[in-house]
Amino acid sequence: MAKLTQFDNEVFRAYATYTAIVLLKMMLMSLITAYFRVTRKAFVNPEDTATFGKGESAKKYLRTDPDVERVRRGHLNDLENIVPFVGIGLLYALSGPELSSALLHFRIFTGARIFHTFAYLIPLPQPGRGLSWAIGYSVTFSMAYNVLKTLWLL
Amino acid sequence: MAKLTQFDNEVFRAYATYTAIVLLKMMLMSLITAYFRVTRKAFVNPEDTATFGKGESAKKYLRTDPDVERVRRGHLNDLENIVPFVGIGLLYALSGPELSSALLHFRIFTGARIFHTFAYLIPLPQPGRGLSWAIGYSVTFSMAYNVLKTLWLL
Amino acid sequence: MAKLTQFDNEVFRAYATYTAIVLLKMMLMSLITAYFRVTRKAFVNPEDTATFGKGESAKKYLRTDPDVERVRRGHLNDLENIVPFVGIGLLYALSGPELSSALLHFRIFTGARIFHTFAYLIPLPQPGRGLSWAIGYSVTFSMAYNVLKTLWLL
Repeated sequence: MAKLTQFDNEVFRAYATYTAIVLLKMMLMSLITAYFRVTRKAFVNPEDTATFGKGESAKKYLRTDPDVERVRRGHLNDLENIVPFVGIGLLYALSGPELSSALLHFRIFTGARIFHTFAYLIPLPQPGRGLSWAIGYSVTFSMAYNVLKTLWLL
Repeated sequence: MAKLTQFDNEVFRAYATYTAIVLLKMMLMSLITAYFRVTRKAFVNPEDTATFGKGESAKKYLRTDPDVERVRRGHLNDLENIVPFVGIGLLYALSGPELSSALLHFRIFTGARIFHTFAYLIPLPQPGRGLSWAIGYSVTFSMAYNVLKTLWLL
Repeated sequence: MAKLTQFDNEVFRAYATYTAIVLLKMMLMSLITAYFRVTRKAFVNPEDTATFGKGESAKKYLRTDPDVERVRRGHLNDLENIVPFVGIGLLYALSGPELSSALLHFRIFTGARIFHTFAYLIPLPQPGRGLSWAIGYSVTFSMAYNVLKTLWLL
């Protein structure tokens, strides 16, 4: 099975490549959140502020910060959109699509989600973020349609 | 490999069908959130209220709304429960169960999660939502038990 | 295909075992949240407090509680880290690694996430939680590197 996926199935290799890229992109949000928490001194767990001393002096760093919250919203939006892509994308890759169609789906989704992250964090004026969200959403929907058309067994 | 999954493995086709359905259902939560944000005029990002003008006149739409928050809780609950179903369900489908057992698991989970969404959004009195949550949870637990029994290698 | 995965591919069986374990661990967070909601009497949906009577008497239980919020943060952190492990781990298992390397990755990740949960809920002083998070994160990153090295097709 390893041999099959490694050498014979280019669609699966494309799926693996783009899935790894978008999941790594999603993981990057954790690092950006940590960066803003440290630079903005905005924490949520009391044990995380222990290095600032004890008692009242450290308590003032238990607060929310607009930049931290913005990254967290982007991270949650990634979870809501990348999870369906990974799940439906696997089924789509195994449903036997043309390599060219599959690459088109994977490339547009990956590009849209990377743009979405920039649009959220800079932030860009709307409808930049909204459009990139809608494009990624449509790609996943199109893959789901192909999966159900090919594999349907209720 | 594509051929195998497409034509020979009915359990995998059933898994693909129900997984696509529950992931599409989860994706629907994004659209419902957007619908309530627009109709309730309750946004979280300043750039999203730019169409309402600048300054104070637009700022009043940066607020939380009970209906929006309810949909968001339903969406997060979907993530918490549908992610384990998709992951464990794939392993279960590949562990060689009877088609009838697999269909029973997939159908009950999908029905329970669709009911859960209605119970959350209408909302229905408890224990409607709690029971449908517990049923979906138990199905995933049962599949995990079968996976570990069949494939266990620690 | 079921036969292949069941009997011939030990790496896939190891992946199935550890994935089932970490997903069950993540599902456990729902039960812990429910436990704290009931014992701390801290709910978020009005329909969940109906058993405490109607009107003002029940409304006082619609509140946040530090213990409930702590479990919920741990649960979200699981979603953010276990989802990439499950997705990238599957691709890694199918990319044909040595069984010993695969077991090393899966065991360290699973141990780190179980420790992370204890560190979050007790809570342990930092850097306990931070380190266990970083170890799990690094394991997923290492698997992604191996996936991209082996299967890369852009």
